[in-house]
Amino acid sequence: MPLTHLVNHQIRLAARPNGMPKTSDWSHTTQAVAEPLEGGVTLKTLALSLDPAMRGWMNEGKSYIPPVGIGEVMRAGGVGTVIASKNEQFTVGDYVSAGFGVQEYTTIEKDEIKRNGLVKIDLRAGSLTQWLNVLGMPGMTAYFGLMDVGMPQPGETVVVSGAAGAVGQTVGQIAKIKGCRVVGIAGGPAKCDWVVKELGFDACIDYKAGPGAVRAGLKEHCAKGVDIYFDNVGGEILDDVLARINRKARIIICGAISQYNNTAPVQGPKNYLSLLVNRARMEGIVVFDYADRYHLAVAEMAGYLKDGRMKSKEDIVVGLNTFPDTLLKLFNGENFGKLVLEVARD
Amino acid sequence: MPLTHLVNHQIRLAARPNGMPKTSDWSHTTQAVAEPLEGGVTLKTLALSLDPAMRGWMNEGKSYIPPVGIGEVMRAGGVGTVIASKNEQFTVGDYVSAGFGVQEYTTIEKDEIKRNGLVKIDLRAGSLTQWLNVLGMPGMTAYFGLMDVGMPQPGETVVVSGAAGAVGQTVGQIAKIKGCRVVGIAGGPAKCDWVVKELGFDACIDYKAGPGAVRAGLKEHCAKGVDIYFDNVGGEILDDVLARINRKARIIICGAISQYNNTAPVQGPKNYLSLLVNRARMEGIVVFDYADRYHLAVAEMAGYLKDGRMKSKEDIVVGLNTFPDTLLKLFNGENFGKLVLEVARD
Repeated sequence: MPLTHLVNHQIRLAARPNGMPKTSDWSHTTQAVAEPLEGGVTLKTLALSLDPAMRGWMNEGKSYIPPVGIGEVMRAGGVGTVIASKNEQFTVGDYVSAGFGVQEYTTIEKDEIKRNGLVKIDLRAGSLTQWLNVLGMPGMTAYFGLMDVGMPQPGETVVVSGAAGAVGQTVGQIAKIKGCRVVGIAGGPAKCDWVVKELGFDACIDYKAGPGAVRAGLKEHCAKGVDIYFDNVGGEILDDVLARINRKARIIICGAISQYNNTAPVQGPKNYLSLLVNRARMEGIVVFDYADRYHLAVAEMAGYLKDGRMKSKEDIVVGLNTFPDTLLKLFNGENFGKLVLEVARD
Repeated sequence: MPLTHLVNHQIRLAARPNGMPKTSDWSHTTQAVAEPLEGGVTLKTLALSLDPAMRGWMNEGKSYIPPVGIGEVMRAGGVGTVIASKNEQFTVGDYVSAGFGVQEYTTIEKDEIKRNGLVKIDLRAGSLTQWLNVLGMPGMTAYFGLMDVGMPQPGETVVVSGAAGAVGQTVGQIAKIKGCRVVGIAGGPAKCDWVVKELGFDACIDYKAGPGAVRAGLKEHCAKGVDIYFDNVGGEILDDVLARINRKARIIICGAISQYNNTAPVQGPKNYLSLLVNRARMEGIVVFDYADRYHLAVAEMAGYLKDGRMKSKEDIVVGLNTFPDTLLKLFNGENFGKLVLEVARD
């Protein structure tokens, strides 16, 4: 059957959401699959990575990448297989990581390959879904944010929010491997237990345990103060940590999931003057800046996966059409582990 | 006349202010001057440095130095002369910089000299009041904040708030010397004119010119965005600058004078996620950390004063007893240049 007889189901951005994205912000479309031109490839989506950052891509305005246009297929990274190739570097059946978009198939022409980020992946280093997690963008974000911006030293105390999420789980495990004391912040006893018992964090604070839980937890578990804070959530928790940082602390601003669906302005950290008192630093990170060194981090992390020092957990939801609802799990804290949308069976 | 016959007029902290300090937060006392013990010196205050940071020292709570205790002489740095010495490194008539406190005389015993920061000053390098300004704490703050945290490169755009104040005037002039484009932010046309015409800043934005003046001014004068922001004020202006920073921008948090007399919580920068988008950094600075290198910065700045590339302006108010009112000039933006309290004529 020629490719063009395949039907590609797609999910497109229909409107810019105000607050939490709703059903009418999406449209479901179908299209014939395109044959690749010389140098191009056609891919079949197996699984897509769902990330908090997606919410930002849906907004208008300057950011680190342009917003998804109204009517465009929603941007998404994923893993899949090559089903047609006119490029000698790719063979039908190869597993790849790429910018697939929220759709079943995508054709990437020669000139687009680099910008798209299309690369072959090696399933000996990790499973397909691990390539979306610890070996993928979340893992790279964790690695370079912690190592390059955080610069952890053995014996330092590292706090990470969203500790059971894709980035947080990896940040904490790397920090443990590097000899730090690691305290997670996550929502609910199940996630907190898992982070401590399975991943080996020294402690985990349940931010849903009631008012003041984070403040009390930090006091209890970070008796020597906080040297590094890897922030995925922003809001009150950022302020609570700012109140307990040590001299020369490093705060990595990776995200602010508590603020992404705000209709009110973002809540600024009112304790930011703690940076002054403590000669501390708050710095933003965007993972794409480290693309030239992904292969080094992947090799290191694959080693940890192999020797059992690194674990990973993916929360896999099946079905392209569930995308609009599944995405929301990220914003109400329902996902447990890296959220993955399974589009097709391998 | 023995020292003990001299009367030392002092101003003490009587109560912790709530918001703007008021008359009843201070008490005026007198004491006999103490003869120094072996290794100590007695100093006569000539001029005191009045600084926004003083407001912070009046509050309870953890900071980079302990608060001034209730009933204690208010902490203040200053310049003066040695009037009695039992220390071979100091001779009567020497000019010194020291932690004098808001009083006419102070006796510093041997064990206190280092912690107090007592050092001889050389009036060939700069005038007495310049030793409180460009060669003193504000100058050191400007130098190390800009150079060590800001790391200016020729051609970069540097924005500094409180541009006509003690720290701001020096930050901008150093940045010009280092080859940057410099845009100040100050209150009122007189200060803005002075900053541009006398100090040679490329532009100065009058934040009192009406709502949106800072935003519009930044757009006009920082067409290529902001690479370094030296922040003395916090509040809305910090947010306005955050909205215009470039990739890898550095924001030096030196102070937040707009927030020091707040009775409400400090206003956090709601645009702080611009740090993420721009992979930028916000970092606090406390000048005392650079004490080992003050002499190097003083030598460099004295050279600029001598060759005319650096100017300085001091706003001198006469009379120890005016201290409670004079201090307030800092918080309503009335001072024009480094605020100095002249306690006695040389």
